[in-house]
Amino acid sequence: MQELSIEIFQSRMENIEFMKRCGVRAESVGYGFGKSRMPLASNENHVGSMYLGALSVLAEAGAAMCGSTIIDDQRHFPIVRSMHLNFLKPAYTDVFAEYQLSDDTIARLLAQLESEGRSEYTAEFDMLDESGLIVATVISTITLLTRRDQVT
Amino acid sequence: MQELSIEIFQSRMENIEFMKRCGVRAESVGYGFGKSRMPLASNENHVGSMYLGALSVLAEAGAAMCGSTIIDDQRHFPIVRSMHLNFLKPAYTDVFAEYQLSDDTIARLLAQLESEGRSEYTAEFDMLDESGLIVATVISTITLLTRRDQVT
Repeated sequence: MQELSIEIFQSRMENIEFMKRCGVRAESVGYGFGKSRMPLASNENHVGSMYLGALSVLAEAGAAMCGSTIIDDQRHFPIVRSMHLNFLKPAYTDVFAEYQLSDDTIARLLAQLESEGRSEYTAEFDMLDESGLIVATVISTITLLTRRDQVT
Repeated sequence: MQELSIEIFQSRMENIEFMKRCGVRAESVGYGFGKSRMPLASNENHVGSMYLGALSVLAEAGAAMCGSTIIDDQRHFPIVRSMHLNFLKPAYTDVFAEYQLSDDTIARLLAQLESEGRSEYTAEFDMLDESGLIVATVISTITLLTRRDQVT
């Protein structure tokens, strides 16, 4: 099992140049839990609120990070299958996404990953601005897969 | 009515720093029609295919651009209400998004925009790589709104 440090997850995000350019941050991490922050600065649209591309990146981080925390990064990896985004309000501050997998979901995911080589979860959460206003809702499906060199 | 030149739509995209950074291009434009290209270069994920944040930006451009072509930019503007993205295959080339509004839809949108100050359409389309492979599907809802200083 990997170490659950913010630095590790931040450095993994920054391996993707696109994520690094927009400044998304790993804010908090725990077993089955991830919280990310998207800065408003340099991610504004033409009217000064957060551009929806930045919200989409945050949604992906919010949905995938919690799954990343329960797997051995050397053997398994998450991919995003789908994202359903509803944009409710313009965001004029940094925006936050977090999701906690339940104990039951974690148990099912790990069991299926061992027995079938893959498993899937759906993360449904709100994205909030600094005042707690819901700026967007997210439903995303994430698949956990086994690395090819680990298939036995 | 505005002029339908690629340069105008490209410059509008580049007004949003986030879009400019990822290099999305207006490829083709017509009345009720828009086609956009997302370059793979500098938008790769950690395994060399296109990062889904770049696909999300392309989806937004593909869904909103066609609506932008039928309105007077000084009076009205489009906003994206929702996006439903299914990621089907990794993309190892540039990716393209295009959508054509039907004549009936255009007539309804313009009539509602005049009578109610707003109207809405749903754009449903595939995003293709250079070989024509469908890498993602998109269903997006766009609202056309009247600028506040134009409300009578």
